Amino acid sequence: MISVEEAISLVESNISRGNTESKELSKAFGFTLAEDIYSTIDMPPFPQSAMDGYAVNYDSTIKIYNLIGEVAAGSDQNFNLKKGEAVRIFTGAAVPLSANTVVRQEDVTSADQTISFTADIRINSNIRPQAEQIKKGDLALSKGKYIDAATLGYIATFGITDILVQAKPKVAILTTGDELVKPGLELKHGQVYESNSTMLHAAFESKGVFEITHLKIPDNYEQTVNAIEEVMTNNDFVILSGGISVGDYDFVGKALKQLNVEQIFYKVKQKPGKPLFFGKKGNTTFFALPGNPAAALTSFYVYIFPSIQKFQGQKFKGCTRLQLPFTSDYTRKAQRSEFLKGQITANKVEVLNAQSSAMLSSFSNADCLIYIPETQISYDKGEMVECLIL
Amino acid sequence: MISVEEAISLVESNISRGNTESKELSKAFGFTLAEDIYSTIDMPPFPQSAMDGYAVNYDSTIKIYNLIGEVAAGSDQNFNLKKGEAVRIFTGAAVPLSANTVVRQEDVTSADQTISFTADIRINSNIRPQAEQIKKGDLALSKGKYIDAATLGYIATFGITDILVQAKPKVAILTTGDELVKPGLELKHGQVYESNSTMLHAAFESKGVFEITHLKIPDNYEQTVNAIEEVMTNNDFVILSGGISVGDYDFVGKALKQLNVEQIFYKVKQKPGKPLFFGKKGNTTFFALPGNPAAALTSFYVYIFPSIQKFQGQKFKGCTRLQLPFTSDYTRKAQRSEFLKGQITANKVEVLNAQSSAMLSSFSNADCLIYIPETQISYDKGEMVECLIL
Repeated sequence: MISVEEAISLVESNISRGNTESKELSKAFGFTLAEDIYSTIDMPPFPQSAMDGYAVNYDSTIKIYNLIGEVAAGSDQNFNLKKGEAVRIFTGAAVPLSANTVVRQEDVTSADQTISFTADIRINSNIRPQAEQIKKGDLALSKGKYIDAATLGYIATFGITDILVQAKPKVAILTTGDELVKPGLELKHGQVYESNSTMLHAAFESKGVFEITHLKIPDNYEQTVNAIEEVMTNNDFVILSGGISVGDYDFVGKALKQLNVEQIFYKVKQKPGKPLFFGKKGNTTFFALPGNPAAALTSFYVYIFPSIQKFQGQKFKGCTRLQLPFTSDYTRKAQRSEFLKGQITANKVEVLNAQSSAMLSSFSNADCLIYIPETQISYDKGEMVECLIL
Repeated sequence: MISVEEAISLVESNISRGNTESKELSKAFGFTLAEDIYSTIDMPPFPQSAMDGYAVNYDSTIKIYNLIGEVAAGSDQNFNLKKGEAVRIFTGAAVPLSANTVVRQEDVTSADQTISFTADIRINSNIRPQAEQIKKGDLALSKGKYIDAATLGYIATFGITDILVQAKPKVAILTTGDELVKPGLELKHGQVYESNSTMLHAAFESKGVFEITHLKIPDNYEQTVNAIEEVMTNNDFVILSGGISVGDYDFVGKALKQLNVEQIFYKVKQKPGKPLFFGKKGNTTFFALPGNPAAALTSFYVYIFPSIQKFQGQKFKGCTRLQLPFTSDYTRKAQRSEFLKGQITANKVEVLNAQSSAMLSSFSNADCLIYIPETQISYDKGEMVECLIL
């Protein structure tokens, strides 16, 4: 049985980047850049007015300026201003190269075709210099960058319409357990409703992964082998839920072995989620998760989420980790590292009730997982603890 | 001009909840509950084995137990165990009501059809009591809960297949500015590429809103009025970008007035994003954002995101706010509150370079917005500052 840190490190070193594909920029949100992006233009492409006002060829000895025209945003006019001349200009418009400053309209009095100033004038005010943000040909964004709204907008700034992105993983979710009944049907004694497939599907969706197959496997060795075989060649990640413990009906481990899936590790010193299996065959990654829903979802956030990131060429980072003070004393219950469902209020973190790995009620209210490492048994109220933000 | 706090409070009090709709549970990820969910069953519905092992009618005077059968997970068998009898049982299976404990298989030696124990036995071990998580008829989840993966799994637990959710908002994004050219075309002098529609579209997508219309409006009064009129009856949110300042070509404010959109506020003491307009007409909400991309995106996170939440019946919360220490001294540049693009590393927050409202480069690298309130001008290195996590 290995530690959480060893398990995370083994997962990281065994995940490789997937394929790349071309994508229309307008459909690229949530993907990851598979190419460096260089600026195609100076940005701004010309000295740009940052204000509504007047572009002026200013000279401190001249008090009254002749207004010789107007530059609206988008206009390609480039007036040649002589000393003592000005043009009306608007935010975003190209400042004539012959102007040496832009004066805000609030600081101007105008009469007929002349203007004068009611405030002190400084040279080069209210002008965004050409290439202030970036020069044509300079590196704007690096391969591996997650494409969020700001990044998408930044790429659009360069007029780029198609980019190379990393493909998202294809995922198969296989749930085992003869006690599990599809929601909508009637429960008999001994049965419970199957919720892990819905939950894990949504967990992948929440991380931008949408190509997901689901199979339900009965507690039968042959059928387990066949189901895994069916999905393993066409998917990047095969996620199994349940059947990975030591019971007589736990066929997942045996089936994976039969199919020559290399076991990288099995069992982690953690609660919940001790019987976690991680393996590889070719380019396909296998996670066999415990059947208890809270254990399965914890494993998703701790091990699978960063794997999806690395598969897409991002850093293997996972949830943002922050140190926050505990709202009360806490003593570790297990002999293993713990991940506790927590809630952050006013910059402090509280352990929620109902931490059992069979229960989702606390997970539904959690906004973080609190990580209690093997090295620390108890915490005082106010002591800092690591939180994985969900 | 009002403060950020006043603006946020005015937005909150002017957003109402939208309509509700029925949704298949498997398609409900990212929606918000529009009904309270009561448990349809005891969960677990029966005393459930938490381990692979043996269910035993234990008596401290008896050392050897007769094995009379087996209960697999999903089996509806309910053995009537007499004192001194046991059955093989597996994780998730229904513990016979006549058993008073479950002994882990690691703590058992078996011979023929009998077992004995290698560890001390405690009554009621390794059994999840019936209804331990929740009792039939009890409130499981309240109206207004965001449906994340855990919540979806929790609802599936009850066998529920359809739920009432809040409809997501329909959004129209209208971009103005004659200097703006569609990516892919060639730039003439004075022109820049239009990036706000792509960026704002992605920002809405990132918050689970997908029904988005986009119109580009030229800098022309009539066409501005017509475009707003066209979208205002069929959308819940109308987002305008640019044209809201005081220039001669800024027609958005005048057009909104012409269309009898009630101005709730115009201009906020903040940087970036001072010329922010917020208004209502009937059930339609209007945000007119500054055209500078970083100002527009900041306004999205601070004002629009929590509005989407409240529209969907969630709390008007917005980005999670955390106090983090500054990596270096900071002195406020503006006479107004500031939102700075920040990056969190090792539990500290750093102000990124390139904070201009015209620039997206820093936003693309930011993982938070640092909020510098009007009440504080400078910060020492290590001093705590409020961060809105993106």
